[in-house]
Amino acid sequence: MSSLDDLTARLRQFVAEREWQQFHDPKNLAMLVASEAGELVAEYRFVPGPASDAVSREPAARARIADEIADVAIAVLLLADRIDLDLVRAVEDKIAKNGLRYPVAASRGRADRPEP
Amino acid sequence: MSSLDDLTARLRQFVAEREWQQFHDPKNLAMLVASEAGELVAEYRFVPGPASDAVSREPAARARIADEIADVAIAVLLLADRIDLDLVRAVEDKIAKNGLRYPVAASRGRADRPEP
Amino acid sequence: MSSLDDLTARLRQFVAEREWQQFHDPKNLAMLVASEAGELVAEYRFVPGPASDAVSREPAARARIADEIADVAIAVLLLADRIDLDLVRAVEDKIAKNGLRYPVAASRGRADRPEP
Amino acid sequence: MSSLDDLTARLRQFVAEREWQQFHDPKNLAMLVASEAGELVAEYRFVPGPASDAVSREPAARARIADEIADVAIAVLLLADRIDLDLVRAVEDKIAKNGLRYPVAASRGRADRPEP
Repeated sequence: MSSLDDLTARLRQFVAEREWQQFHDPKNLAMLVASEAGELVAEYRFVPGPASDAVSREPAARARIADEIADVAIAVLLLADRIDLDLVRAVEDKIAKNGLRYPVAASRGRADRPEP
Repeated sequence: MSSLDDLTARLRQFVAEREWQQFHDPKNLAMLVASEAGELVAEYRFVPGPASDAVSREPAARARIADEIADVAIAVLLLADRIDLDLVRAVEDKIAKNGLRYPVAASRGRADRPEP
Repeated sequence: MSSLDDLTARLRQFVAEREWQQFHDPKNLAMLVASEAGELVAEYRFVPGPASDAVSREPAARARIADEIADVAIAVLLLADRIDLDLVRAVEDKIAKNGLRYPVAASRGRADRPEP
Repeated sequence: MSSLDDLTARLRQFVAEREWQQFHDPKNLAMLVASEAGELVAEYRFVPGPASDAVSREPAARARIADEIADVAIAVLLLADRIDLDLVRAVEDKIAKNGLRYPVAASRGRADRPEP
């Protein structure tokens, strides 16, 4: 069993014990992703970009950031599980699509990520 | 090698080929998570909650939703890799914290998820 | 002086007194908008859509929702002021664009808001 | 009539002509705020903070940014109108609260905005 399947199994049990499936339709879980993403952004919103690597290593900030990243990941896992989506496969497919969308030669070193 | 490590390795190569590391400081990657979460929310914003399971199975919508979920997951994987965070461990730790925060007896069937 | 100009003047003074202009570049203020939007979404994430009007009138929830809406509005006002954008004009222009994008006949009663 | 009341009146007409009130419960409008905030963040996600003022003045980027700010503002106006919230009053109240939360002496020049 992959680590993702294991995490999903734990989350499924967590939700079932609390009878929270009734609140976890895909719409609500998408909102959960967005609200957790907002909390993650809050950790970095007044940190200068070049300082954000160092801030991510400071113990107190790191603990909060790790929690916020985990919260986003949990929301994504719950949503993928709810709609029976193979998350690993979806990510692989999207990386392949992105490879076509951002050809190496046209995209190298460019932040604007030009459309083809 | 776990499936997550494999995905991270692919993403690392994808970014390196395009020399995008320079744009991928943690602050910018947190913004990427938020912008992709916004696109995911857009898929469900005018779908009634009870219909959102069925919408998630319609082929055209499902393809878009799978892409948006994957985009959020990719952003999370990039950020976790950038700050050397063990994502599986972070999720396990957060599930354990949530177990303390939302005891089964007090949380069962409650959408408000009362603080302890 | 319009009410928006008045609010902007108050915010400008608030920020100046605290010497926060240094943190308020447009990038950071865009992140502030997103993090406050995430908190607003959190208020409704487990509320069924049809119940969300009534929840918005319950005193305790309403006070929190009003605060979150105000936080988003404040972030938008700060950003518009920072980049010298006439917000009223920008909104008027966008409504006009939306009128072309979503013609009445093609859009009436359709949640999918078809592209022209 | 204030400029905000005027914008709200226009939006109300726009929505009524398209019979979109049925999709605009507060939950869905909160999701609209979040998805538009995500698009705004996307404009700045790979722009270095110190360059974000200049980027906000470049005509092509400025046009996109103005549209995204307007989209967030429209979503906020729609939500405030839907729940009969006096937005100007809500913002004034929140500024007053923030004044207590971030006293000048303790907050001056500090990005961490310490809790009292």
